[in-house]
Amino acid sequence: MKKKPIIGITMGDPAGIGPEIAVKVFNHNNLHRFCRPLLVGDARVIRDAASRSGFALDVHAITRTADAGFSPGTIDVYDLHHVDLARLEIGRISALAGDAAFTTVKKVIELALAREIDATVTGPIQKEAIHLAGHVFSGHTEIYAHFTQTRKYAMLLVHGRLRVIHVSTHVSLRQACEAVKKERILEVTGLLSDSCRQFGIANPRIAVAGLNPHAGDGGLFGDEEIREIVPAVQAAREQGYAVEGPIPADTVFSKARGGMYDGVVAMYHDQGHIPFKLFGFEWDHRNQRMKHVRGVNITLGLPIIRTSVDHGTALEIAGKGIASADALYLAIKYAAQLANAKAVKK
Amino acid sequence: MKKKPIIGITMGDPAGIGPEIAVKVFNHNNLHRFCRPLLVGDARVIRDAASRSGFALDVHAITRTADAGFSPGTIDVYDLHHVDLARLEIGRISALAGDAAFTTVKKVIELALAREIDATVTGPIQKEAIHLAGHVFSGHTEIYAHFTQTRKYAMLLVHGRLRVIHVSTHVSLRQACEAVKKERILEVTGLLSDSCRQFGIANPRIAVAGLNPHAGDGGLFGDEEIREIVPAVQAAREQGYAVEGPIPADTVFSKARGGMYDGVVAMYHDQGHIPFKLFGFEWDHRNQRMKHVRGVNITLGLPIIRTSVDHGTALEIAGKGIASADALYLAIKYAAQLANAKAVKK
Repeated sequence: MKKKPIIGITMGDPAGIGPEIAVKVFNHNNLHRFCRPLLVGDARVIRDAASRSGFALDVHAITRTADAGFSPGTIDVYDLHHVDLARLEIGRISALAGDAAFTTVKKVIELALAREIDATVTGPIQKEAIHLAGHVFSGHTEIYAHFTQTRKYAMLLVHGRLRVIHVSTHVSLRQACEAVKKERILEVTGLLSDSCRQFGIANPRIAVAGLNPHAGDGGLFGDEEIREIVPAVQAAREQGYAVEGPIPADTVFSKARGGMYDGVVAMYHDQGHIPFKLFGFEWDHRNQRMKHVRGVNITLGLPIIRTSVDHGTALEIAGKGIASADALYLAIKYAAQLANAKAVKK
Repeated sequence: MKKKPIIGITMGDPAGIGPEIAVKVFNHNNLHRFCRPLLVGDARVIRDAASRSGFALDVHAITRTADAGFSPGTIDVYDLHHVDLARLEIGRISALAGDAAFTTVKKVIELALAREIDATVTGPIQKEAIHLAGHVFSGHTEIYAHFTQTRKYAMLLVHGRLRVIHVSTHVSLRQACEAVKKERILEVTGLLSDSCRQFGIANPRIAVAGLNPHAGDGGLFGDEEIREIVPAVQAAREQGYAVEGPIPADTVFSKARGGMYDGVVAMYHDQGHIPFKLFGFEWDHRNQRMKHVRGVNITLGLPIIRTSVDHGTALEIAGKGIASADALYLAIKYAAQLANAKAVKK
């Protein structure tokens, strides 16, 4: 029988909820059934989080993957030994924590490029901390693109049967309008359809959202649909993809959730993130926090596999033991699934 | 005891689902308990729809409001006698139907301005049909603004405790970016807060969404937040409104739904419509149609009250008797509530 994939999981910003949700996920009964999980970060930080968790988990620090045991009840930590616990303030943004978070991500990318691990999963980081530490990246995706020398990539969000890819993400809405180009739409449509196949959907049906209200209403409210989106949909069809669009953005997600489409191409960050977070996030008003954060973020187009939680470091609740590890667990499941699909393809 | 408000309800485009949902709503047991409903349109169209509905409803054609009986079991129709049934094709866009729809809206506005009725509720119209008939309006809101000579108005969507007002609606996304101005944000914030009070919320808490991803992330992705939104929020606070913002658009609606805010100021059409329709609309994949369309659309800023369904004419199912009247019923309830609040204020 084929061995289970090795998944490298970063601890995220050590001042955030990353270490505690990592510990929680290693305590999950099913984790070792579908993968060989390897935590990447600082073993002292993980030991500290484990001791506060109340779980009976051993922390096993290693400095080469060959030494990992991958046994339930043990957290194998690829130990970068880069966080001085005495100086770390949980819940606070700092250069110390930002630098550790950044170095951890860089390491997990290296391990994946060297094929020491089969896929990577990232815990939440804090952009401000990364900047304080002197690293000029606006997020994980940019770090991955840089160190894997990737130019064409896209963010896919997955929650249940809602799968949403983005034409653009971290740019202003004005720039996002500029980024609506036939070639780019065609590119992400292909990425989305191919990844749906990796999730086991034989003939993915893809919907392409409009940019303007009512998908422009025949050119009345903007012409990007006519100039760029319609030609992209036609080209995608000619390439054999089952694509429809442009569909008005305010109905396409109801239809996708209802089962009409397997994936949606969103034209800009919030167009995809608003519906996604409405399904995946639930605000607990009494306790003033988000509960049920269940979305998974997958970067497509990279030479290595990367999935991620789609929530942040939640500094305000870090260290309290109340953060949900649901999204991290799901992100690891998706990473394992993608690793298995990649192995079959070879 | 004060008399119940008279609500003028338009039949909408006679080729769409408007007439049949109007008949359904008059068959609702509770309708006459909270209002005196008056249907405006063509009595022959309504008689035809009523005869196909299977309900035991009398159609009572009148040409002045004083003749309305407002009795349960009877549909009082303010009869414009403008649809030749022999020429009307249900489910088809036509100048005939468009002209009738337009004239009906014009009449209900006149009745409200003349204080013959206390509020207006509009059934769905078809823009293409209105244009075919030679009328140059892109929707109800524009017709109302024109005939009431209103310049400052805004679209409010209501579904459960989600209340969303829009800085702009039927313009391209590029123009919507231009429309994000301090004065306009301040204006709609006031309209939203005041209307929440009319719905019985003593101290409405309002959230103002950002325009750009992550609300611009400190100016990194667009500066409209810094230039326009932050100053608008400050000005609104100085005027005594309980306002927060800018809040990233991808979390503000989860928070509002969870009870953190009573209303949300959306920066553009789809930002407000995406979450709204996700809650209000449900796609029935097996039967390939929307079920549970429950959103209500309210035009604020007019000298008269206007609420509306937020779905379309649904030509593909018109005349089949399967369209849901849920949204129309709710729209009438809101109109009655607003009319009562207005009466108290006087």
